[in-house]
Amino acid sequence: MPSTQTYESRSQTHPTAAGRKLLQIMAQKRTNLCLSIDHTDPETILSLVHQLGPKICLLKTHIDIIAFPPTTPIRSFTAKLQELSREHAFMIFEDRKFADIGSTVQHQYRGGVYEIASWADITNAHSVPGPGIIRGLKEVADGIGQPRGLLLLAEMSSRGNLGGGEYQERTLAMARDREWRGFVMGFIAMKEVGGGGEAEGEDFIVMTPGVGLQVGGDGLGQQYRTPEEVVSRDGCDVVIVGRGIIGADDPVAVAEVYRERSWRAYEGRIRRKE
Amino acid sequence: MPSTQTYESRSQTHPTAAGRKLLQIMAQKRTNLCLSIDHTDPETILSLVHQLGPKICLLKTHIDIIAFPPTTPIRSFTAKLQELSREHAFMIFEDRKFADIGSTVQHQYRGGVYEIASWADITNAHSVPGPGIIRGLKEVADGIGQPRGLLLLAEMSSRGNLGGGEYQERTLAMARDREWRGFVMGFIAMKEVGGGGEAEGEDFIVMTPGVGLQVGGDGLGQQYRTPEEVVSRDGCDVVIVGRGIIGADDPVAVAEVYRERSWRAYEGRIRRKE
Repeated sequence: MPSTQTYESRSQTHPTAAGRKLLQIMAQKRTNLCLSIDHTDPETILSLVHQLGPKICLLKTHIDIIAFPPTTPIRSFTAKLQELSREHAFMIFEDRKFADIGSTVQHQYRGGVYEIASWADITNAHSVPGPGIIRGLKEVADGIGQPRGLLLLAEMSSRGNLGGGEYQERTLAMARDREWRGFVMGFIAMKEVGGGGEAEGEDFIVMTPGVGLQVGGDGLGQQYRTPEEVVSRDGCDVVIVGRGIIGADDPVAVAEVYRERSWRAYEGRIRRKE
Repeated sequence: MPSTQTYESRSQTHPTAAGRKLLQIMAQKRTNLCLSIDHTDPETILSLVHQLGPKICLLKTHIDIIAFPPTTPIRSFTAKLQELSREHAFMIFEDRKFADIGSTVQHQYRGGVYEIASWADITNAHSVPGPGIIRGLKEVADGIGQPRGLLLLAEMSSRGNLGGGEYQERTLAMARDREWRGFVMGFIAMKEVGGGGEAEGEDFIVMTPGVGLQVGGDGLGQQYRTPEEVVSRDGCDVVIVGRGIIGADDPVAVAEVYRERSWRAYEGRIRRKE
């Protein structure tokens, strides 16, 4: 059953520091909207984030699709993103979908030209490599000195994906290991995951992609649901929207529609407790 | 049952151009060894590849763990790798483990600062997002004008991984779609995959990581088998070795031991036909 607890009350008790911070932002700004900024031009991204920052609790990036000119240091771009995140009070989620063995993801998370762990508050990983991937990422996160959270992919929004079912059960079992209680903050999934664990202080934040104002798809297997479906019916906490906002003629106005509909869907959900 | 066909004969009939080229190199150079160059310094990598190029059929890279100095253009590094690959006759396999929806992996494969599709002959992807990931990557590959091959991850070498079993069955079914017959060249797996499809002209090249001269592990869940186990007993075609060579006092001598043992294991396997 979808959680009827408020984000505010969950922000007091969430087992991860990154989760507490995110839930607090959501409650204070009254937004459960995550903007997926799937653009390839760094200046356009900064300009959009500057405009849309007030609407969102979370910014989801794909740093590795950005066409940085040879003269633009990547570090100055990520520093600007961090400045914007402080100014507008949102967190940053690099949607890296780590999917390798522990020793490799450590390098990918900490190093390379992107140095993801240094600027992304949150990242995510597939569970298919087994628990070593979480252990590897956690060792890097522990060395950062800032709250760092991990989401596991329990299922995906694309057609024919192999997540869900037994795969999701095993992913949930991995997430529940007490060794990374303060690091694994939740899931990317299509609906609530692990309901019934609240008694043991469990509280997975579920973020969901594939949300549009109408139902549809993209020809490459992506499928869409509405904010009401994902938040109220399916119990997701954070609504991830990309092309629906970025591709609109008036991104700020459309983002406000998404924010308001997603927030009302959440308010409807918590009222069910009464 | 492990294939008893020679690499040479398979190089005539393999359904993918990248696979034909790789099998030809393997037969001519008498090597089924892939070097996994998990180093973070670009100059060290180039120097090791220069020394080890003659021993290998394939170089496996993680471009995103390399600490490029701000003044080193990534494109000049990848151009040097390509030069070395022509000089010593090996192919390049960027071990990206793509794992996102089709529209995102297109950008990740083609763009960003790494421009993987422009220099990597081969890359790989997880099947968990569903068939859209293959379709997305293939559209990019088709625009390159050079042979480009994709490996799917059927299972992994790390402890507790969620591959294998039904997951692998569904991955195999995805790989068999005729839409990408000329693109999906094989699998990353622990043993042969899809045996019995040869009648329909199917010929998946199986590459396997987690190979050492002794049996063991790394504390982050990685597990090792010997070249004889993987090639002769388990029917793998290409042996992927990283730390076992790179971490040795004399990488060239150790690479030769891996090459020779892996090649003899292959010779033993094809002799079983008689």
